[in-house]
Amino acid sequence: MSEETPGRVDEPGPTADVPSWDRRRFLAGSASLMAAALIGAADTSEIERTPDPMRAPGAGARPYGERSPFDTAARSGGGSLSLTPLQDLHGIITPSSLHFERHHNGVPAIDPSRHRLLIHGLVDRPLVFTVEELMRFPPVSRLAFIECSGNTAQAWGEERNATVQETHGLTSTSEWTGVKLSLLLDAVGMQRGATWMLAEGSDAAALARSVPLTDEILRDALVCYGQNGEALRPEQGYPLRLLLPGCEGNINVKWLRRLKVGAAPFMTRWETAKYTDLMPDGTAYQFSLVMEAKSVITRPSGGQRIHRGVQLIQGLAWSGRGAITQVEVSVDGGRTWRTAALQEPILPKCHTRFHWPWRWDGREAILESRCVDETGYRQPTRRALLAVRGSESRYHFNGIQGWKIERDGTVRNIHA
Amino acid sequence: MSEETPGRVDEPGPTADVPSWDRRRFLAGSASLMAAALIGAADTSEIERTPDPMRAPGAGARPYGERSPFDTAARSGGGSLSLTPLQDLHGIITPSSLHFERHHNGVPAIDPSRHRLLIHGLVDRPLVFTVEELMRFPPVSRLAFIECSGNTAQAWGEERNATVQETHGLTSTSEWTGVKLSLLLDAVGMQRGATWMLAEGSDAAALARSVPLTDEILRDALVCYGQNGEALRPEQGYPLRLLLPGCEGNINVKWLRRLKVGAAPFMTRWETAKYTDLMPDGTAYQFSLVMEAKSVITRPSGGQRIHRGVQLIQGLAWSGRGAITQVEVSVDGGRTWRTAALQEPILPKCHTRFHWPWRWDGREAILESRCVDETGYRQPTRRALLAVRGSESRYHFNGIQGWKIERDGTVRNIHA
Repeated sequence: MSEETPGRVDEPGPTADVPSWDRRRFLAGSASLMAAALIGAADTSEIERTPDPMRAPGAGARPYGERSPFDTAARSGGGSLSLTPLQDLHGIITPSSLHFERHHNGVPAIDPSRHRLLIHGLVDRPLVFTVEELMRFPPVSRLAFIECSGNTAQAWGEERNATVQETHGLTSTSEWTGVKLSLLLDAVGMQRGATWMLAEGSDAAALARSVPLTDEILRDALVCYGQNGEALRPEQGYPLRLLLPGCEGNINVKWLRRLKVGAAPFMTRWETAKYTDLMPDGTAYQFSLVMEAKSVITRPSGGQRIHRGVQLIQGLAWSGRGAITQVEVSVDGGRTWRTAALQEPILPKCHTRFHWPWRWDGREAILESRCVDETGYRQPTRRALLAVRGSESRYHFNGIQGWKIERDGTVRNIHA
Repeated sequence: MSEETPGRVDEPGPTADVPSWDRRRFLAGSASLMAAALIGAADTSEIERTPDPMRAPGAGARPYGERSPFDTAARSGGGSLSLTPLQDLHGIITPSSLHFERHHNGVPAIDPSRHRLLIHGLVDRPLVFTVEELMRFPPVSRLAFIECSGNTAQAWGEERNATVQETHGLTSTSEWTGVKLSLLLDAVGMQRGATWMLAEGSDAAALARSVPLTDEILRDALVCYGQNGEALRPEQGYPLRLLLPGCEGNINVKWLRRLKVGAAPFMTRWETAKYTDLMPDGTAYQFSLVMEAKSVITRPSGGQRIHRGVQLIQGLAWSGRGAITQVEVSVDGGRTWRTAALQEPILPKCHTRFHWPWRWDGREAILESRCVDETGYRQPTRRALLAVRGSESRYHFNGIQGWKIERDGTVRNIHA
């Protein structure tokens, strides 16, 4: 299949639209588009030249499998942080081995048989649970993304990280399994006035955050021991973490050892010295917990190179407020927008994939995406975000990301 | 928390019922049940005795994470087969490293850049695709179980494997990502009379199966390159496999190299000498592709030991025909049944978790589960299945599994 495909391509015109809800029409359109793009590929002799793995027996079964040595996708970073290679992934699950990391004094090594969770404070019966005891409660599973509030932080300023892994790699989606927080709070018996809860981790940073006990959090929050079918990974809080779907990563406290119920926020250093948003007037916005709707194009994205012809523009969208309902793509720097197809599964508070076919003619182009969530909120431009929030914030950047396609096909970060 | 819990337990009586749709009532019931069970646990001094991982910095970030050394869940078996440790898993995703394996001449090592998929036969334009080319088509993801048709095969006879891993471990659920088969068949142009398709793997067994091109298969089938977010694992077909959700494992052809469209089944040795069901009258039932509804209790299950007091009976149910709509549990060998709670996510053609709280009084008991799928089909008893199918089959056993609780709390396989 030639990458510079001649003729007969049903290229969408400037007003063409591929509504996400019209799947049949989209697929039919894509089929003819792609079929035309493939006309050059009918060289069946090529298969004769492929070396034949069929002539020797393969490897035997293993107790715990590993990926192919040809699959080299890796987290970048190191030390207290590593980033998910969004450009290399498929579907919505992030493999646990590639889930982003953020820790403030390393990943503790914890023997689960010696780990305990204490629940105390404004409660009738303070209780201590072993991990094994928590596993006897009715389990709950849900898929949810977790995003570090510092994801895309460099976009508040003029620094431009090169790749989508560097700009947006502090977000990942997993299936999380555990016990409903509300069930544990029922077991200890919350007293009158209990409206906040301190969650403390047993890492060497003793990270601790105040959690408002809102209806939504009481409905959704889990104390988790499972991730993608197995135990939590060490860097995700093994053996226990808090999960507050839609809330910034650090409050999903890892290596969870203690929940203290109270009548007011606890004002830990993690919500005073850190994890507040500095506004243009010099005040700090505190307890900005929800991760607002955000999207980014992962293919093509910074550091990649494209060739003329049909491209399937692909990306991810997510919102801490619920499900993604629409993603639009622009190839002219935000002047005109087309509705992208959303790829199943489309789940609330999960990464959602989108794609839109585009034929690149070799001219400069600026690719952008913007999403809408189920509350009707639309992802803002960087300019609009900075107009309200100033440029002193370090957290909660969710502006539109622009990728410029140069004439030679290289792709680079231009913010937007 | 004492395991022999005195007093005040709201034990469900013989007619008690916990409808899966009445989640609030179930959770409320569970909360009081569990809270009562936990009264003995309010020893907050225990946390003082837990060794403190907070006194030294932890490990740094890694490019590709590994699980905790304390998590030792492993596939059993070896050679051409390995089994998923169902008793150790959480949620519905099976970690890729623990997905069951079945291969007929080992796992081939394939360089994806040299791998090709040929589509030919009754088509207008035979085409050869690289993996990279397939990734340019609009991707599709779905969660689906794959079960080997030989799962639980020993239950056709009198042999009784000890653990649920040994009896039922040839089934796993993943998020699979790839291209719709129908899109590829549109690209090559199926000719009149095209009703079957040969799918051939590039392993040293050259496994090849005939796929009927039914409406359902054309709607659901994928050519996959992704599993749980990353590339397929080698033992799952890296770099390409066919996915036919709900159909027996072996027809989800791995290491896929060729699809040949035809007007009749190809009658390969894999559907004549193997993978047919021998009926009592000596005839063989061929192309029995769909995996019928099945369930099994994973906790407590064979080889485990329980103690008196509250148990959360937990298990898995799945159906190749769609979603699980009900699971019932019996603790008296099938005389009486209670409706178990179904645990979200409840997705068609996926493992679905169920649970039901039970207080064991120390007497002998026989635990069983049975499920109903969205077609109304109910999982049969072993006796009913054998009455129709005889005992010469090797495949498609989906009868009820019984676990006997002995007076000392040990659990053993008694079939049912």
